[in-house]
Amino acid sequence: MAKLDSVIQVDVCTSNHQYPVIICQDYWRHPELLMSFVSSKQVLIVSNETVAPLYLERLRSVFSSLQCDELILEDGESTKNQQSLVAIYDALIQKKHHRDTTVVALGGGVVCDIAGFAASTYQRGVNLIHMPTTLLAQVDAAIGGKTAINHPQGKNLIGSFYQPRSVIIDLNTLNSLPAREFKAGLAEIIKYGLLVGGDFLKKLQQVLKQGLTAQSQELSWVIEQCCRIKATYVEADEKESGLRALLNLGHTFAHALEASTNYQRWLHGEAVAIGLYCAALLSYKLALADKSLVAEVKSLLQYAGLPYRIPKELDLTHLMDLIRLDKKVKEDSLRFVVIKAPGDCCLYSRVTTECLADTLITAVEGE
Amino acid sequence: MAKLDSVIQVDVCTSNHQYPVIICQDYWRHPELLMSFVSSKQVLIVSNETVAPLYLERLRSVFSSLQCDELILEDGESTKNQQSLVAIYDALIQKKHHRDTTVVALGGGVVCDIAGFAASTYQRGVNLIHMPTTLLAQVDAAIGGKTAINHPQGKNLIGSFYQPRSVIIDLNTLNSLPAREFKAGLAEIIKYGLLVGGDFLKKLQQVLKQGLTAQSQELSWVIEQCCRIKATYVEADEKESGLRALLNLGHTFAHALEASTNYQRWLHGEAVAIGLYCAALLSYKLALADKSLVAEVKSLLQYAGLPYRIPKELDLTHLMDLIRLDKKVKEDSLRFVVIKAPGDCCLYSRVTTECLADTLITAVEGE
Repeated sequence: MAKLDSVIQVDVCTSNHQYPVIICQDYWRHPELLMSFVSSKQVLIVSNETVAPLYLERLRSVFSSLQCDELILEDGESTKNQQSLVAIYDALIQKKHHRDTTVVALGGGVVCDIAGFAASTYQRGVNLIHMPTTLLAQVDAAIGGKTAINHPQGKNLIGSFYQPRSVIIDLNTLNSLPAREFKAGLAEIIKYGLLVGGDFLKKLQQVLKQGLTAQSQELSWVIEQCCRIKATYVEADEKESGLRALLNLGHTFAHALEASTNYQRWLHGEAVAIGLYCAALLSYKLALADKSLVAEVKSLLQYAGLPYRIPKELDLTHLMDLIRLDKKVKEDSLRFVVIKAPGDCCLYSRVTTECLADTLITAVEGE
Repeated sequence: MAKLDSVIQVDVCTSNHQYPVIICQDYWRHPELLMSFVSSKQVLIVSNETVAPLYLERLRSVFSSLQCDELILEDGESTKNQQSLVAIYDALIQKKHHRDTTVVALGGGVVCDIAGFAASTYQRGVNLIHMPTTLLAQVDAAIGGKTAINHPQGKNLIGSFYQPRSVIIDLNTLNSLPAREFKAGLAEIIKYGLLVGGDFLKKLQQVLKQGLTAQSQELSWVIEQCCRIKATYVEADEKESGLRALLNLGHTFAHALEASTNYQRWLHGEAVAIGLYCAALLSYKLALADKSLVAEVKSLLQYAGLPYRIPKELDLTHLMDLIRLDKKVKEDSLRFVVIKAPGDCCLYSRVTTECLADTLITAVEGE
């Protein structure tokens, strides 16, 4: 593999696959690196309207010796549906892509999730490269092999586990990321901090307090640590039969919040931020955590400039119904990831409807 | 596991999974057997209009202690599409099926393929049991973990590799199978005979000559041998990166024949029968096989009462285009499974357009 200047490589090793996550700057100066993960003469780049004008031509130039097709989706979570999926299949079929083609996902979490799902199911699975361009996708969506589309009834209800051949993180793509999107990525980073606690959380707290931006020197270290943390969970439990479920900290709340507002109101990371606050509150209500935990989570989210309260006008009954449909609900018990303390999270299955309702009411702004 | 009278068990062992194929009669007399493969309180039975009236109630009675929902699809290959897939997702979501639910496919190859694909992608994969009720599904579709739906442009273009928890073959279901469907299953059995040759082919030849029906004593032996042959290929190469591709003998032709007639004219097995004859002809045209092979394949198909010629009115140019789109085509070379002799098949990648055209023309009836 070609060497880039000051490149960081994190390997993800599951039982059947091993692949590198490469954190670098200006990958396109080294086309041989990217080409080493392509094994045929066909490539389909899947991107969106926002990212394509910025980075598509540069990427196409790397693949200039190949049949390089593209599919540009609308931007936003509402794109992650059946119709977009079928559009990717149709593009692959119309351009006669064979079983050894490569799908390249160039964009944020939505693009990675949907292109990954298409790659996992076109001709029963073709080669996949993730090139995440948002902070959230770089630390979370592009790593670990979860792919999905949404269903009107809930987020990520249809999907697969499918590992990419490689993940290429170009830090420079964050320079063009809107501040709101950058902050949304910080929510997943805070989640990792709460999961592992210790020195990482301590340093993260400092960094967030100082204000973490795309230009911060500490950013590549933060991203690397998050990739390593995520890789650890994925390697231990690729298909989420146990440990990996902890990565869903805050997400049962977040998915219901997003579904209840038709994926329009919040970026995923913003919903996760509120979800993390709800998880801390729930842990406190269950007498598993000290009240100081709630304050700590709140201050982390505030440092990052993220929302953390549920807006007044939300219908909490509808929200409760959506939570019940969530994938993490096993049979009839309501199951959540709870935080006993930073670095000490676990699954908790005996959450009553009353306790959940109480948590949601307390999380509403102004309460 | 409970014991049935004169039950035959064939184990399929892939790198990550091991599961039994159980060949028996009257499974429903032993509900504990089936229940041992269900791990939650929810089951969705997917079946079709033809099979459901015959066997659905009996199966429901086995699951009487569970939440047992059902989805009945139309019969036929044209059902294996996006719309039916979405109907299965919707049924699972409407009835609030969780991640630990079990999907039971009760029907032929179409039901097994589409229910298997839905199970592999609902919530990123739920438990799956195949209960194949046609000869073709019992010896082929239900075993080995290939799932798929069709696309208007080609067969099985969207799908996954997903192993079931178990396959339950009840030989008595073949008693109600129409003769045409039974014969279609014989095409896949003849394919196995050509792949392995030797004693199995010799005995199969005799049995077919005498006339193999659902009532024949030899049938359970034939089915068992086919399951063992298929398991061998699947175990060696689950994801079809090499050896397993040999199971596609005749199928590149068959898929194109089916697509060119909108999946209306032939049962899948009938198209495979014509495909096997084309594969023998191609092998002869390539000077890889003796002319006697063509005669041998022809007589096997005739004993089974199967078609083997391409009808005059078919547009061969369109057929050639469809063959080029087939999954087995790698990059630009036309790749086919060829038969040097029974028991000696291999992949052959250097088939020219001219040779393919010549083969198809010779296969047309009356030529």
